Amino acid sequence: MIRIGVIGYGYWGPNLVRNFYETPGACVSRVSDLRPDRLKLVTSRYPTVGVTDSQQELIEDPAVDAVAIATPVRTHFELALRALQAGKHVFVEKPLAATVEQVQRLIDAAQGAGRVLMVDHTFVYTGAVRKMRELVEDGSIGDIYYYDSTRVNLGLFQHDVNVIWDLAVHDLSIMDYVMPCTPVAVSATGLSHVAGATENVAFLTLFFEGRQIAHLHVNWLAPVKVRRTLVGGSRKMIVYDDLEHSEKVKVYDKGITLNRQTDRSEKMYEVLVGYRTGDMLAPNLDPTEALRVEAAHFVDCVSHGKQPLTDGAAGLRVVQILEAATESMKQRGRPIELPSVVLK
Amino acid sequence: MIRIGVIGYGYWGPNLVRNFYETPGACVSRVSDLRPDRLKLVTSRYPTVGVTDSQQELIEDPAVDAVAIATPVRTHFELALRALQAGKHVFVEKPLAATVEQVQRLIDAAQGAGRVLMVDHTFVYTGAVRKMRELVEDGSIGDIYYYDSTRVNLGLFQHDVNVIWDLAVHDLSIMDYVMPCTPVAVSATGLSHVAGATENVAFLTLFFEGRQIAHLHVNWLAPVKVRRTLVGGSRKMIVYDDLEHSEKVKVYDKGITLNRQTDRSEKMYEVLVGYRTGDMLAPNLDPTEALRVEAAHFVDCVSHGKQPLTDGAAGLRVVQILEAATESMKQRGRPIELPSVVLK
Amino acid sequence: MIRIGVIGYGYWGPNLVRNFYETPGACVSRVSDLRPDRLKLVTSRYPTVGVTDSQQELIEDPAVDAVAIATPVRTHFELALRALQAGKHVFVEKPLAATVEQVQRLIDAAQGAGRVLMVDHTFVYTGAVRKMRELVEDGSIGDIYYYDSTRVNLGLFQHDVNVIWDLAVHDLSIMDYVMPCTPVAVSATGLSHVAGATENVAFLTLFFEGRQIAHLHVNWLAPVKVRRTLVGGSRKMIVYDDLEHSEKVKVYDKGITLNRQTDRSEKMYEVLVGYRTGDMLAPNLDPTEALRVEAAHFVDCVSHGKQPLTDGAAGLRVVQILEAATESMKQRGRPIELPSVVLK
Amino acid sequence: MIRIGVIGYGYWGPNLVRNFYETPGACVSRVSDLRPDRLKLVTSRYPTVGVTDSQQELIEDPAVDAVAIATPVRTHFELALRALQAGKHVFVEKPLAATVEQVQRLIDAAQGAGRVLMVDHTFVYTGAVRKMRELVEDGSIGDIYYYDSTRVNLGLFQHDVNVIWDLAVHDLSIMDYVMPCTPVAVSATGLSHVAGATENVAFLTLFFEGRQIAHLHVNWLAPVKVRRTLVGGSRKMIVYDDLEHSEKVKVYDKGITLNRQTDRSEKMYEVLVGYRTGDMLAPNLDPTEALRVEAAHFVDCVSHGKQPLTDGAAGLRVVQILEAATESMKQRGRPIELPSVVLK
Repeated sequence: MIRIGVIGYGYWGPNLVRNFYETPGACVSRVSDLRPDRLKLVTSRYPTVGVTDSQQELIEDPAVDAVAIATPVRTHFELALRALQAGKHVFVEKPLAATVEQVQRLIDAAQGAGRVLMVDHTFVYTGAVRKMRELVEDGSIGDIYYYDSTRVNLGLFQHDVNVIWDLAVHDLSIMDYVMPCTPVAVSATGLSHVAGATENVAFLTLFFEGRQIAHLHVNWLAPVKVRRTLVGGSRKMIVYDDLEHSEKVKVYDKGITLNRQTDRSEKMYEVLVGYRTGDMLAPNLDPTEALRVEAAHFVDCVSHGKQPLTDGAAGLRVVQILEAATESMKQRGRPIELPSVVLK
Repeated sequence: MIRIGVIGYGYWGPNLVRNFYETPGACVSRVSDLRPDRLKLVTSRYPTVGVTDSQQELIEDPAVDAVAIATPVRTHFELALRALQAGKHVFVEKPLAATVEQVQRLIDAAQGAGRVLMVDHTFVYTGAVRKMRELVEDGSIGDIYYYDSTRVNLGLFQHDVNVIWDLAVHDLSIMDYVMPCTPVAVSATGLSHVAGATENVAFLTLFFEGRQIAHLHVNWLAPVKVRRTLVGGSRKMIVYDDLEHSEKVKVYDKGITLNRQTDRSEKMYEVLVGYRTGDMLAPNLDPTEALRVEAAHFVDCVSHGKQPLTDGAAGLRVVQILEAATESMKQRGRPIELPSVVLK
Repeated sequence: MIRIGVIGYGYWGPNLVRNFYETPGACVSRVSDLRPDRLKLVTSRYPTVGVTDSQQELIEDPAVDAVAIATPVRTHFELALRALQAGKHVFVEKPLAATVEQVQRLIDAAQGAGRVLMVDHTFVYTGAVRKMRELVEDGSIGDIYYYDSTRVNLGLFQHDVNVIWDLAVHDLSIMDYVMPCTPVAVSATGLSHVAGATENVAFLTLFFEGRQIAHLHVNWLAPVKVRRTLVGGSRKMIVYDDLEHSEKVKVYDKGITLNRQTDRSEKMYEVLVGYRTGDMLAPNLDPTEALRVEAAHFVDCVSHGKQPLTDGAAGLRVVQILEAATESMKQRGRPIELPSVVLK
Repeated sequence: MIRIGVIGYGYWGPNLVRNFYETPGACVSRVSDLRPDRLKLVTSRYPTVGVTDSQQELIEDPAVDAVAIATPVRTHFELALRALQAGKHVFVEKPLAATVEQVQRLIDAAQGAGRVLMVDHTFVYTGAVRKMRELVEDGSIGDIYYYDSTRVNLGLFQHDVNVIWDLAVHDLSIMDYVMPCTPVAVSATGLSHVAGATENVAFLTLFFEGRQIAHLHVNWLAPVKVRRTLVGGSRKMIVYDDLEHSEKVKVYDKGITLNRQTDRSEKMYEVLVGYRTGDMLAPNLDPTEALRVEAAHFVDCVSHGKQPLTDGAAGLRVVQILEAATESMKQRGRPIELPSVVLK
């Protein structure tokens, strides 16, 4: 039985508690929050779970094997590091930490301590995203041409992070899981419409070694909610719409065919583009709640010493892009090279 | 009676002929095309309209008062210039010409000859776009925050122009008409997925003097068709979806409210963002075909010596961005300053 | 403080407990269910709420002021009657009881005991349905022409009731609230696709005194989910789509205009139909959970001796139609007169 | 070369002329209309096509092999009969004639004269409907459970026919083609909202020998356009939405599974309903214009003496239902038996 301590019972913490509570092989032994009313809420819902307003007390609690952290981004590093140093396994809400350097230090600390470090890239554990990865991996899509996502709505303006760190982090984690290659540079643009606040609208383009491109579009100030990703490939193309009730993933047998041929009159090679259109298939998806799958995966990794799917390296790849994109955005889109690739 | 000669009876020419044919105060006196089968088609449809395979003959025809040009982009400048020099009024399919310099020379030639020069920014004449301009102009939207458009589908790969010149030109012309200000710089990214061909996917960000931003998203290689524009404002927000059957424009009484207030404990000013949500209104739109409105407008300008809504200056503002965006795209998003603004 | 006892903790009971639990002025004092595991679930979620496997014990409990019943339809009458006889106020899940006669006896019992009898017509308490009623009442819609609803999906086949009693009951309760008049006859058709089971697809037409008609379309065996109601009126028309995320109610300024005029040549009156098309408005709706509004309303009625909006008479009007429709369905659509109208 | 004469150049006639004009093996030799301005329009569009204001002259013209009739319903019989008697092949807009008796006499006349009689059930020739038939015929759908269509919008109120004859005729012709069985009785309800006019809203239920049911829902007075058909089967279910741009037909691998089993305690057989959910497939459809396919089919039948897919018998099966439904509607849904089945 893996005993989980959860730090932070604000927006996301209740989901962590609920899911770890119901994960076979795990139990929630303790929850901490700085606000007494949040702790009272824990007690009314889970009378058997211990509570404390001291994060350190929870971290040092010998009845806690693993710590799940659901606090503001700026506190991730400090809490995770202390937990790893206390010999705990650690599960951290996305993004893993506030800087590349912090993430690197957490990876080192986890490795040194021989403990599991996992970042909560929730979407990776949805049936929809797992299906997309499967379609890319088994060759159904062919060569990837582009990854293009839009995530906009009238959303809460965050105080400590900009819209890239709040929303694009989801798309970057999905892309990191689905795409077989990692980007080499980023160009980002964006703006804040509120004086003194962080950017609330942003656009990222990611460049790759080959003929791939990715684009992310995020906005806290849109009148309608859009959660749509297109993946273009040489054989098929995917539309992933997270707002669809049932058919979230649609696979289109559509695209172009390239016929290289000699144009004799011009004595040169010319490419003829042909167009292909076929069936559309919306595959049946596993409807299990992502966080339930993810909680079980974490418990499995802790129990059997496995490497999580969304490990420190995954967290690092995502934070590298977040950091570079924020820098590019300050320079109105000037492309920023990404650090040498972390192998997937 | 304004006698129109139409050069080019390929994809768009038939629409020009049909609309000018039915415009009161105008007639189509002649059509030219280099392909005999296209001319035969003209004759079968309009037995009374003269045809010729010589563009020059049409341009010099004394029975032609105005020339409408619907040929490939690279030929616009030469044909339009010759027509203006022959004393004809000129109507040119978008974009007005292939370079900023060419457009500038056409503007000068039209001015020198005292002839009307109009560019076919068709969408400007739709009921939907006219309504959007009205909503911006009468203050309903408040201060504009952003203009964000997506125009993607599985479309014909053009040989001579990239996807920006083919698709984004529509959005730039709409934006030029709707927005009260003009951009000062552009950052663009994009890629060609076909060796030796022009870019088939592209993303443009436009910067303005103030706190506005615009983003355009175009793609010839998408599995689904999207034609959607969001306009965010301080009072209301617009969603314009050109694929909707009837409610193409939706106005959302949604947004944020800013309350600047003193946080005494911190001795500093802090901004509080509030959220507002109200009714959505889809105004009734004039369903008249845009090209019919536009053809009548051209005939009116020619008849009464008026300046067209989409004149040479409008064409110039759009081509300036197309040119700068193509340059930025080659440099992976490095921002390019736009030439000094042409007054609207 | 009104102390509520809830009978039945299956599909709907948990929603009742949760909402009454959080309703100011009320508390849930006891829950009964015949299944021990359901009671265990109650205890784990609400440690302070008493549980019992005896419905009678709960009914007779002096610490219970009002009984909420969420059990199979066939048991409603017996339980509600016993509760009223024990001096309790009663809240019953829809439909109020299994026959017109039973409903009539419950109404009489409540009146005799001076207790509140309320039926859980949940949709009546949604922001969307309240807005529809408002639009009808204030004359915005004009004269009602028709009420037309579709409620289909791949749903649970009920064992004891047919699809009319399970699904159409929702639409009948909405219609009863929204429409200013009550039907005088019903023609219903339907079929069971499973030998020995109740009808899983059904269609009802309701006739009124005047020039109104209503139609209900219900199906447990549809591949897609549809929850759409059209209300046609002489001035405006409503589309209510319960699956829309935000714009559930749309009001169309569309319709026909009737111009009665003399056709001189024919020496008779002829009607000319004109068509009118205007704006569409999606009014902002109160997003409060319906059951929360409804629970507060029940507590208010009990506390202050008020008549509920969805009282026994509303329950009776709905069950009269359910009963007659089931009879008509057996006779392949033969119209059945409805009993003399219960005044609204 | 089959020489076609077209009677009636109003709403539908131009489509017939255009398609027969472009059908290989056919030409349009003559068009008649009672209105001079319509004939002038024909001449301006097709200078080589002869025109006449005399229907009889066209019918008797020896340069006409086949007559296509696109006139009001009440005139179909007379014109078609005269054309058959004059030895012409006949193509008639839907519905074939205004009464069952008239249709029967046309069938007899065609048979007696050895001429082709074809009714213009246009939808039967769309890629979408042909795909549906294919899916039913090859067993993909399994046993058919129901056919359920909705065809509503703000449409032109017809003067001579009610909404069943105008709109439901489309769905009946599609159903006649797609369903493997024919109905035995109909119950219909409906209403006119305009005094003295025909019914503008109607609902039809069709009963079959077996466990099938069909329902049609038509309305000229709806604020939104809906063109949707559901076909439920034991193996798969179809949604056909004619307003979709590309995926008009969707095939859902969803449904119920029936497990008959002995309930030992009750000593009886009980059915357990299970639910099945799988992929959804939108098959690629032939995009050819239906009327083009249909015109070629008529020409082929005339040229080679074949029986058309939509022959007199198909027209008869549809008119039988239209007539019975109108009768049932007068009696508020009382079921009307359909005449002995015409073999398909």
